[in-house]
Amino acid sequence: MQIAESISPRLAQEVLSIGVNGSTWDLTRPIEQDAEIKLYKWEDEEGKHAFWHSSSHLLAAALEQLYPGVKFGIGPAIETGFYYDVDLPNPITDTDLPVIENKMMELARQKVPFVRTAVSKQQAMDTYRAKGDQYKTELIGDLEDGTITFYSNGDFTDLCRGPHLPSTAPIKAVKLTSIAGAYWRGNEKNKMLTRIYGVTFPKKSMLDEYLVMLEEAKKRDHRKLGKELELFCFSNRVGQGLPLWLPKGAALRERLENFLKNVQKGYGYQQVITPHIGMKELYVTSGHYAKYGKDSFQPIHTPDENEEFLLKPMNCPHHCEIYRSKPRSYRDLPVRFAEFGTVYRYEQSGELHGLTRVRGFTQDDAHLFCRTDQLKDEFKKVIDIILYVFKTLSFDEFIAQVSLRDPNDKEKYIGSDENWEKAESAIIEAAAEKGLKTIVEYGEAAFYGPKLDFMVKDALGRKWQLGTIQVDYNLPERFDLTYTGADDKPHRPVMIHRAPFGSMERFVAVLLEHTGGKFPLWLAPEQVVVLPISEKFNDYAEEVSRKLNRCDIRAHVDSRNEKIGRKIRDNELKRIPFLLIVGEKELENGTVSVRMQGEGDKGTMTLADFTAMLSALVAEEIKPIAEN
Amino acid sequence: MQIAESISPRLAQEVLSIGVNGSTWDLTRPIEQDAEIKLYKWEDEEGKHAFWHSSSHLLAAALEQLYPGVKFGIGPAIETGFYYDVDLPNPITDTDLPVIENKMMELARQKVPFVRTAVSKQQAMDTYRAKGDQYKTELIGDLEDGTITFYSNGDFTDLCRGPHLPSTAPIKAVKLTSIAGAYWRGNEKNKMLTRIYGVTFPKKSMLDEYLVMLEEAKKRDHRKLGKELELFCFSNRVGQGLPLWLPKGAALRERLENFLKNVQKGYGYQQVITPHIGMKELYVTSGHYAKYGKDSFQPIHTPDENEEFLLKPMNCPHHCEIYRSKPRSYRDLPVRFAEFGTVYRYEQSGELHGLTRVRGFTQDDAHLFCRTDQLKDEFKKVIDIILYVFKTLSFDEFIAQVSLRDPNDKEKYIGSDENWEKAESAIIEAAAEKGLKTIVEYGEAAFYGPKLDFMVKDALGRKWQLGTIQVDYNLPERFDLTYTGADDKPHRPVMIHRAPFGSMERFVAVLLEHTGGKFPLWLAPEQVVVLPISEKFNDYAEEVSRKLNRCDIRAHVDSRNEKIGRKIRDNELKRIPFLLIVGEKELENGTVSVRMQGEGDKGTMTLADFTAMLSALVAEEIKPIAEN
Repeated sequence: MQIAESISPRLAQEVLSIGVNGSTWDLTRPIEQDAEIKLYKWEDEEGKHAFWHSSSHLLAAALEQLYPGVKFGIGPAIETGFYYDVDLPNPITDTDLPVIENKMMELARQKVPFVRTAVSKQQAMDTYRAKGDQYKTELIGDLEDGTITFYSNGDFTDLCRGPHLPSTAPIKAVKLTSIAGAYWRGNEKNKMLTRIYGVTFPKKSMLDEYLVMLEEAKKRDHRKLGKELELFCFSNRVGQGLPLWLPKGAALRERLENFLKNVQKGYGYQQVITPHIGMKELYVTSGHYAKYGKDSFQPIHTPDENEEFLLKPMNCPHHCEIYRSKPRSYRDLPVRFAEFGTVYRYEQSGELHGLTRVRGFTQDDAHLFCRTDQLKDEFKKVIDIILYVFKTLSFDEFIAQVSLRDPNDKEKYIGSDENWEKAESAIIEAAAEKGLKTIVEYGEAAFYGPKLDFMVKDALGRKWQLGTIQVDYNLPERFDLTYTGADDKPHRPVMIHRAPFGSMERFVAVLLEHTGGKFPLWLAPEQVVVLPISEKFNDYAEEVSRKLNRCDIRAHVDSRNEKIGRKIRDNELKRIPFLLIVGEKELENGTVSVRMQGEGDKGTMTLADFTAMLSALVAEEIKPIAEN
Repeated sequence: MQIAESISPRLAQEVLSIGVNGSTWDLTRPIEQDAEIKLYKWEDEEGKHAFWHSSSHLLAAALEQLYPGVKFGIGPAIETGFYYDVDLPNPITDTDLPVIENKMMELARQKVPFVRTAVSKQQAMDTYRAKGDQYKTELIGDLEDGTITFYSNGDFTDLCRGPHLPSTAPIKAVKLTSIAGAYWRGNEKNKMLTRIYGVTFPKKSMLDEYLVMLEEAKKRDHRKLGKELELFCFSNRVGQGLPLWLPKGAALRERLENFLKNVQKGYGYQQVITPHIGMKELYVTSGHYAKYGKDSFQPIHTPDENEEFLLKPMNCPHHCEIYRSKPRSYRDLPVRFAEFGTVYRYEQSGELHGLTRVRGFTQDDAHLFCRTDQLKDEFKKVIDIILYVFKTLSFDEFIAQVSLRDPNDKEKYIGSDENWEKAESAIIEAAAEKGLKTIVEYGEAAFYGPKLDFMVKDALGRKWQLGTIQVDYNLPERFDLTYTGADDKPHRPVMIHRAPFGSMERFVAVLLEHTGGKFPLWLAPEQVVVLPISEKFNDYAEEVSRKLNRCDIRAHVDSRNEKIGRKIRDNELKRIPFLLIVGEKELENGTVSVRMQGEGDKGTMTLADFTAMLSALVAEEIKPIAEN
């Protein structure tokens, strides 16, 4: 804080926490040796984190005043805001939240400082035993002596590692968003605590904006839109988390698949089709069984024979078997097998959420088998495809994260140092050569190889993990994949796993929330609706619709016996890009009156002109990827 | 026989058995009352059946002479030929078969009559007890007194219901085709008997033709061709009977799927996509669990919760759930849900065979939900689609079988008499109005409704069951499907299951055996290969290939350093429809020299002309179905 003040009083007001040699600290904590420092403000994740973490302590202080005897579990900052799990003497409901919010603001305005104290394990234990708080004593039991700190704000003291704001002063707006039940330590055998979610801001106006965004997000909830637009549904008899794609959703998905298939064809990908089950032995070979077997859908037995199958959780083992189906030469590589492969992974029912968290999903999967010297080039081509997909679908903001080995814990990873170094620099160079802005995270690589993940920002500024590219040295080893080199000797290929969409389910969900259901024209489930002014023109409307259908334009007629104004309003609400109004004049001249969603009247034109205009708009939207 | 002789001596020579009031009898059996009769010759199934059944007795007689002490199980006629399961004193091998064949011909030439004797159960039992034949005594134990007959040819007497030829005279050629093991009564706890397969003919030349056909069938075996053409493979680690579609096979399958999707779109079908598993409850509701549960892939358990899933054996329950996903009105019907749905059904490993008998396969499935008054019309439309598919793929010979209820055992079937009568006459009328030649089989309907099955004859005259159309009153009942009628009351829709291909796996197998791998141009995995005369022209060849690829023509270059004659021969063997030879002259003029598979030289032309010619040929092959 002194450093910030020495730079400028304004900075001192804005700064929330500080990075000291790579760890985040309280601003008020003394720095007792030379260090590299970084000051964090609201715009930084680390700044927000301290802000919301302090806000959870503020919530706890308010609860202790309002509900004496309340006991506390844990209260972390999360991606958006914070929560605290508490054991309340009496149950509370949503209607109690404004009272708590008011108490929080009252305490915040007192500008109470957060005070850090190091305590011994014994002291810590004694404090919470005296308070009769079994949750904190349980937590302390797991900690090592010499590492334990308390933080106090006013009368409230919490077992906490920090860091925190200097005081409650910067907290200017509070919203408690919801209440949920949460088992202590996530174990359903433990007591159910009350989880209170909240969010706070350094300005009142930011809270207002946030609430507007929340409202908008609710309207764009893909579960709601998916139902309204009849894209998908769920059935309890089929099973939770297993989407059924309705006609319009299946057609939308097919358009996305064909779009990607076309791009991939140009890059030498070959589609394959593999079954949705495999012998247990297949996953023992791949290592999936040892790693995930117990937490997955359990093996499928057969009636007579001693065979065991598993639902496939990944397509890669199947593609390795296809690679093995014939000898490969160095001249044949890279080999690129693509499959829209449906995989099944068990998730607890409480974790399921619309299309973003499901038990069965279809990956836009591909596995590239290449020589080490081809790795960088292949990686660049995959980046091209992913950027093309993002551009075509208007995901203009995204972050690319390079996940590398933890350089201090190399034993965690399989594969030689040499291969890791080659792969890591291939990714870094490929990203740089493609002009990709990346953030690098050490220790975030998979155990079998480094990777590059893409997070997109949607129209409401929310981040979604989509595409991924991963290098794999493990499976080629486990499946003993080889190719014959120029030296006539067997060599081991490298494998790249990649999925630009991630999965069809997740991608469609994100696209729904990003566009609010207003899909680009080429994707829209319904492109055109023809509105006859009165029943007299139904036949002409049908003729127009039929002619458009024949040109592969998705059109239908709204022949309801309603006023034209009503028909226009209803169909605008359905997010249909083009409304064609037809009456006496149009029938006589063989024309249509065109209204474009959100842009109003576009004048009268012949059907041929309209068709040409629509085709041109679609062509503009899905401009082919540049020849490579 | 006397009747046949009274008509013409020629007929008497050709006739093999006789139909008497609907049963097939020996020609020599006296007709003791007025009866409707039909004389059967070699061309008739019933004639062939008697011929081959008598041949199995001839085989038995030969074995009894060659291997005294041999005991006999059963020896029926089958679709092509006959077999006898025998318990031999010593094992035999293929090398013993010619000796047995010779003995059979020796006995046949003696023109020994087949003599029918009715015996009492006691007599029958005494005979075989004396012989020490435990198999026949076991069979006799199951028979009712008063229904038992023996047939003798020479010294050999068999427990048999007949009918048989008048004598062994018509049997002019014998081929014993193979030996296999077969458990007595198909039960693996019983003794393994030796099954000897054979076939016989009334003319030596017919046997020769048959052997040529067998040779050709071996060449066309889809397992062999599938490997040569790299269409599919199997992996023991993935599991038996679970095909992996290789790139060329997956592309071929996609062409077939898109072809059918296009046709179906014109008929108002809507594609849907459903998961490959469902809760056990789904199949309890549908009735599949009670009927097939024990013999299927067993339920899939989940780690934490008390849920049970099953691999889906059929798509219909999922489609019923989609039907239920929103209210339907009489105006919305018919609703037609189509899915290339992959289903899994357990088969014993011994039963598996290439792509024709698998454990996982993809049905070109659709379920039409309609009103009873729409049934006939919908049926006619499905017939249109099936006939169009057969025509496009040159299955010019086929049989349509109408399978109706057994009128004497109506309790076996679910649904009201009225609905059955409506459905049966809808099928019969639809077939008649479409000019379809049908055979009617009583008692062959499914328990839930009547059906129409299509059997195609392939180029070698072998029959394959392909498309099927089935009416279903059961599932709409079980899933409580309704629509709101014009009377505003709920009504029950009728369901049609249909699959023109049957399954993608089976269809591709049949297509391979039918065409011997010479697919029609639009389906061929490789349509064009460009052959540079020498390495000097490799670049031009690549350019030609690239330009063709851009016009969606499947072309590649054979750039091996081989003589052009060798390249032509090799590529002709690969069944590639077009060979383009390029050298000095072609490079200079921007042309190609065209050779067509099986038709030789087609002259030199510009690439544009060649592309136009190829496109015209493809358009001719897949002429669109007439507007309906």
